[in-house]
Amino acid sequence: MPERHVPDIVVARLPLYLRALSAIQREGLAFISSKELGERLSISPAQIRKDLSLFGDFGRQGKGYEVNALLARLRRILGVDREWLMVLVGAGHLGSAVANYTGFAQRGFRIAAVFDNDPQRIGVRLGEHVVRSADELDAFVRAHAIRLAMIAVPASAAQTVADQLVRAGVRGILNYAPVTLTVPPSVRVENIDPVLHLQHMTYYLSAEPEAAGTS
Amino acid sequence: MPERHVPDIVVARLPLYLRALSAIQREGLAFISSKELGERLSISPAQIRKDLSLFGDFGRQGKGYEVNALLARLRRILGVDREWLMVLVGAGHLGSAVANYTGFAQRGFRIAAVFDNDPQRIGVRLGEHVVRSADELDAFVRAHAIRLAMIAVPASAAQTVADQLVRAGVRGILNYAPVTLTVPPSVRVENIDPVLHLQHMTYYLSAEPEAAGTS
Repeated sequence: MPERHVPDIVVARLPLYLRALSAIQREGLAFISSKELGERLSISPAQIRKDLSLFGDFGRQGKGYEVNALLARLRRILGVDREWLMVLVGAGHLGSAVANYTGFAQRGFRIAAVFDNDPQRIGVRLGEHVVRSADELDAFVRAHAIRLAMIAVPASAAQTVADQLVRAGVRGILNYAPVTLTVPPSVRVENIDPVLHLQHMTYYLSAEPEAAGTS
Repeated sequence: MPERHVPDIVVARLPLYLRALSAIQREGLAFISSKELGERLSISPAQIRKDLSLFGDFGRQGKGYEVNALLARLRRILGVDREWLMVLVGAGHLGSAVANYTGFAQRGFRIAAVFDNDPQRIGVRLGEHVVRSADELDAFVRAHAIRLAMIAVPASAAQTVADQLVRAGVRGILNYAPVTLTVPPSVRVENIDPVLHLQHMTYYLSAEPEAAGTS
C-alpha cells in the first residue's frame, strides 16, 4: 500500500517514470540522474525528485538513482510486479485492434477473454481468443476475480456494459468508447479517445496566425 | 483566435464538452443546463460555467445553454469547424489499427496518407490507403501543408520520425509509440499509451486491502 496520500497528478506520472526507466535499463545504464531522466521526459528534475521522495529515498549522492532498485520499487508501488488479467468487451473494428495490440501482454496486462453481444461475432477467432457471448461476461469476471476491463463497444452501449462490469466486480475500466461513463466512486475509469487529443491540439494550431487566415 | 489566455487544463476539457453536446444534439435537445451537462461529464456545473464564460456568454437565464449555438462556437474555438488532414507514419499492427479507425473521419480528421519504411509494407493496401515509402513523407507534408501527424512506429524509431515531421512543418503530433518525444516549443505532442492508463488504475487497485493480500 502507498505510504501516504499521494496526489493523483503524481500517480499519473509514475507510469511515465516506469516506462522511461525500463528503456534506460534496456540500454544497460545502472544509474540515472534526475537531470537526465527529466530531459528524457520533459519534466523538471526538481519535480521528479519531489515525486519520488514521496515513496522513499532512492537517490545516491552524486550518482543519481539506481535504475534496477527504482524500477522494482515503482513496479511494486504501481501494482505491476504481477500480471493483471483483463476482459475486453467489444469485438468490432475497435475491439479487434485492441485485442491484437501486443503491448498489453508485454507489459503485464493479459486479456483473459473477449466478449460481444453480436451473434455474428460470437465464436469468431480474434488473435488468440474466441469471442464469447456477452451473456457469459458476469460469470467469467466473478469466476476469475477480474478487476480490470476494457470497453470497446459503440458509445450507445458503453454505459450498460460498464454497469454490468461494475456489478460483476470490476474496479478499473479502460474506456475506448467516445462517451463519458458514470461509475460509483469505488471504480476508476480512464478514457482513450484519440479525437479529444487531436482537438486539444487544433485549438492551438488554429490560434496560429497562418491557420487563422485559412479557416 | 482565443479571446484571452485560457489555461491548458480548460482547453483539455473543451473537446469533452463538444463530444457531450454532440450527443445531446443527436438526442434532439435544444437547451441544456450546466447541471445536466455536469452530470453527464462528472464535472461540477460551476466548473462548466466558469470554463465556458472564458469564451463569452452562452447561457440563457432559466433555460441553460442553447445547444446548437454552443456547439458551433466550440467547434470554432477548437478549430474543428473545418476538416483537418493528417499523415500516419507506421503501418504495422498498431498503425493498421489506427488507419482503420473510422472515428477520425467521422469527427473531421482525415488521414491523407500512410507511410512506412519497411519495403514489405510499402505498396500494401490499408483501408482506403496504399502505404507509401517514408522517403516521400517530407515532400507530401510540405505539398499538402499538413500540420497534424500520427506516429505509430516502434518506440526506437519514434523520435527520428518526429524530427522528420517537425522539419516538414507538422505542428501537432498524436504519438502512439510508447516513448516520450522531444520537440521544439512550437510543436504540440499528445500521447496515447493505454498501458500508462492501466498502470494508473492498478496503483489504486493494489492499494485495496484484498488486492494487497494477494500480491
